Amino acid sequence: MSGNELRAVARRGLMLVLSSPSGAGKTTISRALLERETGISMSVSATTRSPRPGEIDGKDYHFVDVDRFHRMVEAGEFLEHARVFSNYYGTPRAPVEATLAGGKDVLFDIDWQGTQQLAQNARADLVSVFILPPSLEELHRRLSGRGLDSADVVAERMAKAGDEMSHWPEYDYIVVNSDLETSIGEVRSILAAARLKRERQAGLPAFVNRLRGLDRDSGG
Amino acid sequence: MSGNELRAVARRGLMLVLSSPSGAGKTTISRALLERETGISMSVSATTRSPRPGEIDGKDYHFVDVDRFHRMVEAGEFLEHARVFSNYYGTPRAPVEATLAGGKDVLFDIDWQGTQQLAQNARADLVSVFILPPSLEELHRRLSGRGLDSADVVAERMAKAGDEMSHWPEYDYIVVNSDLETSIGEVRSILAAARLKRERQAGLPAFVNRLRGLDRDSGG
Repeated sequence: MSGNELRAVARRGLMLVLSSPSGAGKTTISRALLERETGISMSVSATTRSPRPGEIDGKDYHFVDVDRFHRMVEAGEFLEHARVFSNYYGTPRAPVEATLAGGKDVLFDIDWQGTQQLAQNARADLVSVFILPPSLEELHRRLSGRGLDSADVVAERMAKAGDEMSHWPEYDYIVVNSDLETSIGEVRSILAAARLKRERQAGLPAFVNRLRGLDRDSGG
Repeated sequence: MSGNELRAVARRGLMLVLSSPSGAGKTTISRALLERETGISMSVSATTRSPRPGEIDGKDYHFVDVDRFHRMVEAGEFLEHARVFSNYYGTPRAPVEATLAGGKDVLFDIDWQGTQQLAQNARADLVSVFILPPSLEELHRRLSGRGLDSADVVAERMAKAGDEMSHWPEYDYIVVNSDLETSIGEVRSILAAARLKRERQAGLPAFVNRLRGLDRDSGG
């Protein structure tokens, strides 16, 4: 074994997007991914809404006022942003760019509209996964919640989930979440494979030159 | 749980190609993949060379005579073919097509020339992986074999491996085989991810229609 063998090939990071209708398991899968994988962290959004008890500025969100948010939008400082009810949310570009340049990955838990904006701004770095529930019955069961909601409310949630699901053709990968552990494994495989894509391994030309003895001086 | 949940989404199979210079571990990785994965089998080549003791026609190779081979070439029955010394080798198209149509995958252990031909004939179904040795020293060690060969012979093998390695930019994925178990895991992740690509899951439109309640009759 030479020192060379243990030196990983330098790579550029990637943006892993998970989207799904509510109830499909996206949040649980995201959390498991962050616990089990190294080299990937969650994107921290900026928002104009007030911090909730226990939320930490810079960790859970970057809390900014509306003026600041609008100036950031105008300066092109967001990779994606949206208004949800009366609050604004956005993904600041600079920290994501710095993470990717350092060869680390960023996880995004966003909807199809955010994904479309990310794709416009950074398609080459994007790997997008859409998570589907396993069946209509299971979706209905999860959206019915504790069984306390009226049929109208449940029907509205089903319709909203249906609209969200209609965007599956815009994603690179589709995971049907029948079994949580299987789905976590599938998303981890998608991440592992994306890291092995030729064009993401920026250090390969130099690495192969060393292997071919074309650049012995920089070898191990 | 409904019956629907356990029904996998129908998909088209894929062709997984592993290439590498000799000594990089391709054959060991292929064997491990076939042992540990279901739904993937090795492509059986046709050849004009004579069977070696123990080789079974239809399992190890399809043994054909030179006339038959040439007629198959002219009829476009090969996905790729090549002459190696005085023998011909080729991948018959029909069994591969039947396997893919049945939603199963096919593994190919072929060089860059075969991979180029496969890419010309079936690009959409192809996932190609190039395996590199971890260092120049390790490559030299493996190609020196038992240490019984002359420096000239070893130099010739290094040069041949170097030529082969120059084709890494033609592959989708690059695996540096520093540790065999890690590399096997990486190739398995590439296969798992490739199976989850949206465009390979041919049954998705019907599956999502059932989820959205647009086609209840065919649901579970």
